[in-house]
Amino acid sequence: MSRVRWGIIGAGSIASRFSEALAALPDAETLAVGSRSQDSADRFARANGFFRAHGSYEDLAADPDVDVVYVATPHPFHAENVELCLNEGKAVVCEKPFTVNAAEARRVVELARRRGLFLMEGMWTRFFPLMERLRKVLAGGAIGEPRMLTVDFGFRAPFDPASRLFDPNLGGGAMLDVGVYCVSFASMALGPPVRGTGLSHLGETGVDEQFAAALDHGGGRLSSVTAGTRTATPHEATVFGTEGYLRIHSPWWRPEAMTISKPGTGDVLVREPTEENGFVYEAAEVMRCLRAGKKESEVMPLDETISVLDAMDRIREAWGLRYPGEEAGA
Amino acid sequence: MSRVRWGIIGAGSIASRFSEALAALPDAETLAVGSRSQDSADRFARANGFFRAHGSYEDLAADPDVDVVYVATPHPFHAENVELCLNEGKAVVCEKPFTVNAAEARRVVELARRRGLFLMEGMWTRFFPLMERLRKVLAGGAIGEPRMLTVDFGFRAPFDPASRLFDPNLGGGAMLDVGVYCVSFASMALGPPVRGTGLSHLGETGVDEQFAAALDHGGGRLSSVTAGTRTATPHEATVFGTEGYLRIHSPWWRPEAMTISKPGTGDVLVREPTEENGFVYEAAEVMRCLRAGKKESEVMPLDETISVLDAMDRIREAWGLRYPGEEAGA
Repeated sequence: MSRVRWGIIGAGSIASRFSEALAALPDAETLAVGSRSQDSADRFARANGFFRAHGSYEDLAADPDVDVVYVATPHPFHAENVELCLNEGKAVVCEKPFTVNAAEARRVVELARRRGLFLMEGMWTRFFPLMERLRKVLAGGAIGEPRMLTVDFGFRAPFDPASRLFDPNLGGGAMLDVGVYCVSFASMALGPPVRGTGLSHLGETGVDEQFAAALDHGGGRLSSVTAGTRTATPHEATVFGTEGYLRIHSPWWRPEAMTISKPGTGDVLVREPTEENGFVYEAAEVMRCLRAGKKESEVMPLDETISVLDAMDRIREAWGLRYPGEEAGA
Repeated sequence: MSRVRWGIIGAGSIASRFSEALAALPDAETLAVGSRSQDSADRFARANGFFRAHGSYEDLAADPDVDVVYVATPHPFHAENVELCLNEGKAVVCEKPFTVNAAEARRVVELARRRGLFLMEGMWTRFFPLMERLRKVLAGGAIGEPRMLTVDFGFRAPFDPASRLFDPNLGGGAMLDVGVYCVSFASMALGPPVRGTGLSHLGETGVDEQFAAALDHGGGRLSSVTAGTRTATPHEATVFGTEGYLRIHSPWWRPEAMTISKPGTGDVLVREPTEENGFVYEAAEVMRCLRAGKKESEVMPLDETISVLDAMDRIREAWGLRYPGEEAGA
């Protein structure tokens, strides 16, 4: 494989930002984009330097020159878009949240495994150099045994029932938009969650405008997550261990620095330089996996993606929040 | 009333520290102590400058010269010790947690009200100058409308099944020891909790060695609490509002400074000097109330103490933690 030839499904702002990252990687080729209309595909291709523009997702998925597809559609369409690409034999990286619930995730993961194709959730924050460093620091016992953590991700958007953020049909609400980052971080630091519960404020449109959740990661390890779309939070993640604690500086989800605090020994500041466009780390990980013939990433394993969604399902169950089309107990 | 004449029930370390605070207040008189043995009462009285030493709680409660009793026994004895004093017509301030559960709290509050006597939970952290300032700052809209908060209180104690901290018979565990501070703070900042849930790690002795809880304060306001007796946490409290957030510096429960952060306007540091012995503020509030003829404090109202314990009961229910002697559903 010389340059990895990328296709993108979806022509929105996140697809543009991902394309910028690909353009910055010498071993990536921005080959083709697929949109719901030829017109928007053409515009996206011109603006982002793509070679081909397909007027449907089906044509993009069937393009024989595409090696890997980045799925950048709204969350409720992820599962079907990923399936479309897998059925055409493509490797796929799908924007977060991977799917709307764990049942959908299980379905697409099973398909990828059956067909022997690469698949990964595009949990971009996990691939930053500082996060790699954090995993090493935790594994090395810098704060003793990690036991608990708190993590928050909240911003204040104007209330707009027509916006994706507040529309239940588009998987609106804090959990799928930003809570998923927090649950995934907790999973990375303390192990995949085995239980989840919490409380939320469901707004006028019925989606969670803010929530406070607790997760059990097994072995007595617990995390606490706060997120919202109507309240700004500090954007910090703090892991508490038996011998100290560690805080990723704000915004933790685009991490550049952390402080390790141990009683009696003072604070240690750890910095890792970050590229302007953070998607480069995620895209580089995908290409590293493809070149190595891997079917999934060790940094963001598929079983962990499913565990995270399982916990999110359990938390939503405690709130009584179901998205349109979800069955009771799904 | 010239000097307020104090009695103390219990002769442990917290009683000593409270006595130091009384000694620093010119309008307080350390009149009498009551302990379970004459010997320990004598020793405490000598060491802490008390005028009289009673060899039983009953004798202390019956001492006609005592105006107000500070109850400083282990939590499971609070309710009966408070009742003893109220039945002798004494004003009472009871160390936190006020009682082990809300049912006990309702019982003693009802007794105080029936007898027209002053009663207050000794939630010392609420009376610091910085907390008074915080209440004003929040009421004044410095961070817009307060919507969420996170608060933590965890320390690492050695595991010792014989210690009060781990003994279910003495109301051991993180919730009653330090979690109550967090729940009470959340109540003060966002309003009394109306619901609570969470997850905990129950250790070998059956009590909560750490927990993550979520509280609903009505109107969509939510808080997130983490606490533990086997894991050290940063000891911070952060209130998120619609226009910014506010963080009390560590340790938040003995507060001396807070930072108000608003996007675009930079951070504002607020400091309030603190006496060496923080109990002076609590004792002063009690004497202010007594001199004003009040039956309870507006800073720590009895109904709020009950709401906090109600929420703690609900959270423990979610964990399946009941203390010996508590009935199912108590």
